Amino acid sequence: MKAPSLQVAQWFNTEAPLTLDDLSGKIVMIEAFQMLCPGCVSHGLPLAKLVQNTFPKDQVAVIGLHSVFEHHDAMTPVSLAAFLHEYKITFPVAVDAPGPGHLPKTMAAYNMRGTPSLILIDRSGNLRAHHFGDVSQLQLGAEIGTLLLEKAPLDVALSETETAQKPGCDETGCSL
Amino acid sequence: MKAPSLQVAQWFNTEAPLTLDDLSGKIVMIEAFQMLCPGCVSHGLPLAKLVQNTFPKDQVAVIGLHSVFEHHDAMTPVSLAAFLHEYKITFPVAVDAPGPGHLPKTMAAYNMRGTPSLILIDRSGNLRAHHFGDVSQLQLGAEIGTLLLEKAPLDVALSETETAQKPGCDETGCSL
Amino acid sequence: MKAPSLQVAQWFNTEAPLTLDDLSGKIVMIEAFQMLCPGCVSHGLPLAKLVQNTFPKDQVAVIGLHSVFEHHDAMTPVSLAAFLHEYKITFPVAVDAPGPGHLPKTMAAYNMRGTPSLILIDRSGNLRAHHFGDVSQLQLGAEIGTLLLEKAPLDVALSETETAQKPGCDETGCSL
Amino acid sequence: MKAPSLQVAQWFNTEAPLTLDDLSGKIVMIEAFQMLCPGCVSHGLPLAKLVQNTFPKDQVAVIGLHSVFEHHDAMTPVSLAAFLHEYKITFPVAVDAPGPGHLPKTMAAYNMRGTPSLILIDRSGNLRAHHFGDVSQLQLGAEIGTLLLEKAPLDVALSETETAQKPGCDETGCSL
Repeated sequence: MKAPSLQVAQWFNTEAPLTLDDLSGKIVMIEAFQMLCPGCVSHGLPLAKLVQNTFPKDQVAVIGLHSVFEHHDAMTPVSLAAFLHEYKITFPVAVDAPGPGHLPKTMAAYNMRGTPSLILIDRSGNLRAHHFGDVSQLQLGAEIGTLLLEKAPLDVALSETETAQKPGCDETGCSL
Repeated sequence: MKAPSLQVAQWFNTEAPLTLDDLSGKIVMIEAFQMLCPGCVSHGLPLAKLVQNTFPKDQVAVIGLHSVFEHHDAMTPVSLAAFLHEYKITFPVAVDAPGPGHLPKTMAAYNMRGTPSLILIDRSGNLRAHHFGDVSQLQLGAEIGTLLLEKAPLDVALSETETAQKPGCDETGCSL
Repeated sequence: MKAPSLQVAQWFNTEAPLTLDDLSGKIVMIEAFQMLCPGCVSHGLPLAKLVQNTFPKDQVAVIGLHSVFEHHDAMTPVSLAAFLHEYKITFPVAVDAPGPGHLPKTMAAYNMRGTPSLILIDRSGNLRAHHFGDVSQLQLGAEIGTLLLEKAPLDVALSETETAQKPGCDETGCSL
Repeated sequence: MKAPSLQVAQWFNTEAPLTLDDLSGKIVMIEAFQMLCPGCVSHGLPLAKLVQNTFPKDQVAVIGLHSVFEHHDAMTPVSLAAFLHEYKITFPVAVDAPGPGHLPKTMAAYNMRGTPSLILIDRSGNLRAHHFGDVSQLQLGAEIGTLLLEKAPLDVALSETETAQKPGCDETGCSL
């Protein structure tokens, strides 16, 4: 399945806007988060930093996606800019474009369950993994390792995991 | 030394404004923080919650103090309200009153070095401990235990510790 | 209540055998452990080291008590000596004297529930706290702080906590 | 490079002795440890358990190797049996055969630097990774993921990492 396009209101940490087509040939990991989601701060974003620092940048691209679906007034781009500075996040971060309801557009297109959500896209632009909540480093490493070895698109089933369940935020994430 | 008064622009999690005089007879712990300070989120505020849940509420009062000295536009009361909700902080939180410069008034009156800062005030309203950065639970417990046993004001020297040093934020706190 | 005497088969990390009477005037913390008890290794002994390094040695004495009640052949003094070396434990450690059954004598005299158990004795030799399993640093700090402030014996009730429950070992300790 | 054979004095947690030839067709992870090595207890063995529980047992086999090179009297098979029981280790564990000096034979054949050491062997019996000290879960996951995807032996360079350095034990392991 082709990964849906990113729909972005604003970018941080990149000189020019990015598209998935631009990143074709690389594995793309999207970390969808909200700056006031405790599980994103304690687990999701540190994991994204770790991926950024573990794999070669010319093979694995890490992108943050600020997908705000609650407390919109509290998580404006002004606040996000300060957050990215204080938490020393240096990979490109996209502000998910507002949708008709409280859900932003990219979040809706990917049918995400909440934040943090982690998306893996292979070199050919196919959606290959979609996790919600805590993700095991060992499992994620195995998935990225598998994608790294691929030379051509394969017909691999989509893997999905999730740990958070009730609506609202808990230690593992924020649920719709 | 008498603890300086709190100078507060707005309160959260309390029906009426609080003063240190109102709290006379209790030990008061003030946790000064900024909502976008990583060390406050990972260490300072969890410690304040732990004190809140460990000691009897009629003997030890925990108060949060939102002392913003940077990124003022990013940490408004609207954002703070969402932060307190998502991080499930239930003790009273005061917004430190803006000062003439970038430093808020209570922070300046206590001569704080940055956030997180932790203040202990005894039953008679005296400033008894002032920590900046990480605080050992064992050390803090011993200090609170000492204050709990006191029946009358004593002439005890002020203890101070600090771990963060360079200006800016690191894992242990945000420094002036 | 007067703390029962230590009944010891062998000492490590001390030139001469110790008695509680020798330590009169100091607060004594006894950390009862087994070298193959996972909760002792992950929580109990690190906490004892922390107490050793946090409080003045002339006021608080930390003593390890190797109270083996299972797998006796696997936790001999020869193995214990290597364990203390590898884990860099430098406070005095007593081997609890074997009893008529599988329970060693000091463990029986203190009516311990298993390992790790933590005992606090005040300056006058009274048993003041008895914890089994995980101990909150904040709580322990408050107890030691209280004992430090005492100048003369007080009539304070014994505090007891416990977290482990089922017989056998789990993350929090090993239960009888 | 073909992985050297295991030279084993005694097995635990398996009905019959195992050889690498028996395991041909599976990826084999060998976790070399000493029961009194702090880094093995805190990091190495928990990682081996995680691999055991993350990947399909018919594709990835986890084997413990008790490679004692110091304190031989303190880490006998009797003590090891109690250790495996208390730490709930259920994968097969081999006692590395004593060598002419203080180094056991398998440890010498693999030219290990100390404990913990982690070895990965591919489906065709080739040595593919050799780590000493702390191993990143993300990195290990990627390596196992890569090996899982291979259908036939490839000519991939051996990866090696190490973190511990000085002789003796520290938090990351025990060094020769």
